[in-house]
Amino acid sequence: MDRINALKQSAFKEGKFDFFLVFDSFNLTYFTGFPGAAALLIPEQGQSSLYVSPVNYEQAKAETKGLNVELVKRGEKLMEKIANLTVPKKPKFAVDTLPIESWRVLAKALGGEDKLESASGLIHEMRKIKDPKEIQSIRQACKLASLGMQVAFENIKPGIKEKQVAAEIEYAMRKNGSEGTSFDTIVASGGASAFPHGSCSDRTIREGDLVIVDLGATYNFYRSDMTRTFTAGKPTKKQNKIFETTKLAHQKAFQTIKPNEPAKEVDASARQTIETAGFGEFFVHNLGHGVGLEIHEAPTLSPDSKDILSIGNVVTDEPGIYLPGYGGVRIEDTVLVTRDGAEKLTVGPYSLTDSE
Amino acid sequence: MDRINALKQSAFKEGKFDFFLVFDSFNLTYFTGFPGAAALLIPEQGQSSLYVSPVNYEQAKAETKGLNVELVKRGEKLMEKIANLTVPKKPKFAVDTLPIESWRVLAKALGGEDKLESASGLIHEMRKIKDPKEIQSIRQACKLASLGMQVAFENIKPGIKEKQVAAEIEYAMRKNGSEGTSFDTIVASGGASAFPHGSCSDRTIREGDLVIVDLGATYNFYRSDMTRTFTAGKPTKKQNKIFETTKLAHQKAFQTIKPNEPAKEVDASARQTIETAGFGEFFVHNLGHGVGLEIHEAPTLSPDSKDILSIGNVVTDEPGIYLPGYGGVRIEDTVLVTRDGAEKLTVGPYSLTDSE
Repeated sequence: MDRINALKQSAFKEGKFDFFLVFDSFNLTYFTGFPGAAALLIPEQGQSSLYVSPVNYEQAKAETKGLNVELVKRGEKLMEKIANLTVPKKPKFAVDTLPIESWRVLAKALGGEDKLESASGLIHEMRKIKDPKEIQSIRQACKLASLGMQVAFENIKPGIKEKQVAAEIEYAMRKNGSEGTSFDTIVASGGASAFPHGSCSDRTIREGDLVIVDLGATYNFYRSDMTRTFTAGKPTKKQNKIFETTKLAHQKAFQTIKPNEPAKEVDASARQTIETAGFGEFFVHNLGHGVGLEIHEAPTLSPDSKDILSIGNVVTDEPGIYLPGYGGVRIEDTVLVTRDGAEKLTVGPYSLTDSE
Repeated sequence: MDRINALKQSAFKEGKFDFFLVFDSFNLTYFTGFPGAAALLIPEQGQSSLYVSPVNYEQAKAETKGLNVELVKRGEKLMEKIANLTVPKKPKFAVDTLPIESWRVLAKALGGEDKLESASGLIHEMRKIKDPKEIQSIRQACKLASLGMQVAFENIKPGIKEKQVAAEIEYAMRKNGSEGTSFDTIVASGGASAFPHGSCSDRTIREGDLVIVDLGATYNFYRSDMTRTFTAGKPTKKQNKIFETTKLAHQKAFQTIKPNEPAKEVDASARQTIETAGFGEFFVHNLGHGVGLEIHEAPTLSPDSKDILSIGNVVTDEPGIYLPGYGGVRIEDTVLVTRDGAEKLTVGPYSLTDSE
C-alpha cells in the first residue's frame, strides 16, 4: 500500500486526474505483488480496485491485501465496467500505458479521448528508486546469477555445445531458488560472440573461441543481469587486448557511479577508455540500464541519457567490444547506487580463463 | 519472403494503404526470423526495410535474407527516419500495434493520425494458420514438453519441493534442445492447485496432494503447452472423480476438433461434460487458445469465440476443475487441426498416478 500511497501523492497533487489506471503487468506487480490482474484503479481517496478475470480471481483474493478485488465476469467488458463505475460524473483518468486499440476502446467507454491522459513516466520514475525490500530481492537474484556464472566457467571447454552450457547454468540457478531466467540465457561462442545479443545455439565450442555468457536469475519477481567472457583454451594476444580494454572500461565506469552523477558521464568514462584504445566504433550499445521487475528499465546509462543517478538505483555496467567476423568481449555487473558510491551485487572474477 | 508477399496480397488489395509497418517482436519474428529489429517497413511494391539499432545491426545483416537492413544510428529517431523516407508524398500506413505514446510520436512524424491505421487483425489471421515449417517447430517443442512431463511424473513424490520439480523438468527439456520455457513452469500442489495460474513455490509436496504441472518448451521460436495433474500418493475418491470428469471433458473436446468447427462448440462439448457432472462453476477459464510464436494467440476456444477452426490451427484443449481451498485438476494437450480432424502433438498418459 505504501507504493500506491506514494503514487497518489505525486499523481493527484496538481488536481489533473481523479483516477489512476494501471494496466502494465510489471506495474501491477509493483503495486500489488500480483501480476495476474487486468487493471488496477487507484482513486484519489479511498481503496483501490483490482479487476480480475475468473481464471485468477481466487488467487487474487488470496494473494493481495487491502484491495477491493473486482471480478470481471465472462461477457463483461473491462473498459465499460471501469467507465460505468464512474458514471455519471465521467472523471479524468491517468493511464500508465495501453496499446492504441485498447486506448480507443477505453476512450469510447469514457466518452472521449479528453478523459484520458497517458502518464507512464510517473511510475517509471518511482520504480527507478528501489526500496529495501526490492533491493533484498535483487540481491538474491544477483547471488543466483553469480552462482550460474561460476557453473558457466566450470563447463566451458572445447567440445561442449552452447545450449548444454545454458542447461547447466539454468539448472544450478533453479535448484538454488531462482524462479526462472530473467531473459533468454546467452552463450555465444566464436563468431557469434561478435553479436551483442547472439543467443545460444547447437554450436559446439571450439579451442580458441571467445565465449560470451550473459545470464540472469529471477527472485520474488526481481531480476539480475551479469556477463562474463571466457576463452576455450589459452587466450591470444588480441583476445587479451580487447578483454583488458573492456575490463578497464568496466572498472572506470564503476568508479564513476555515485549519487547525483549524470548517467551519461558514467557511459562516457567507459566509452572514452574504449575509444582511447582504438576500439570506439566496436562498442555498439549503451553502457547500461536499470534492472528491477523488468530486465531493461530506467535509468539508462547512455551518451544521450538525461538521467541523474540516485541512491537506490540498480543499474548495469556492461561495456563491450565486438569485432565483426572475429568475436567479442563484454563484462557486466548489476550495481546498486549507494550513499557512498556503488556496490556490485553480482560477483565473479574478471578473467578470460578465471585463473586469477 | 512468402509471408511478406502473403501480407502484401491481403493488406494492399483494397488500396487503403501504401505501407505496412510492423513493430511487434513476434510479428517481426514471423516475417523475418529475427526478433531483434525495431521495425519492418513493407511497401506495396519492392523490397522491405528492416530498421535495426547498432547493437543488433551486424546480427540482422547476417541472419536475414532479402531485406534492406537499415541502421538506426544513435541520436536518429526511428519514427522520423521512417517518415522522412516517404516525404514529400506522406503516404498512408497500416500499423500492426503500438503503445499509445509511440503511436502519437509516429503520427506526429507523419503529419497526423489520419496517415495511420491500426491493423493488428490481419497478421493475427495469418498467424492462425501454421505452415509446414511452423508445424515442424511446434511439433519439436511439443516433443520436448512431453519429455518434460515424463520427468515431472518421475520426480513428484511427497517430500520434494515444487521448485525442485520445475528444475528437473526444465533441465531435461533444455538438455534435449529446448531454447527455454514457453512460459513460467507451473508446479502447483495442494491448495495452490486450485489456482489455474498458481505458479511454483518453495512448498514441499505432501502425501495426498493434487499437483498440477503446466509446462512448455520452445524450439526455433515456437512454443508448446501441456498440463497433467498427479497425486502424490494414492488418489482419494473425490480426487478421482474430478480427474475422471476433466479427462472426459478433454476427450470430448478433442473429438470435436476438426476443420470448419466453430471454436465455441469445442469449448461447449467440454463445458457441458463438466456441468453435467456438477462442477460447472469450477471450470473458470476458456477451454483453449492458439499456440505458436506466442503462448496465447488466435484462435480462442471459449463460449464467446467467433473463430471457426481451420486446417493448420494449433490450439490447446485444456479443461480444468478448481475447488477453492481443496485443489484442482487440469489436463491439456497441444493439438493440430488436420484435414481429418485433429492430432495431439503433446503425448503422455492421462492418469493421476501414471500407472495406466
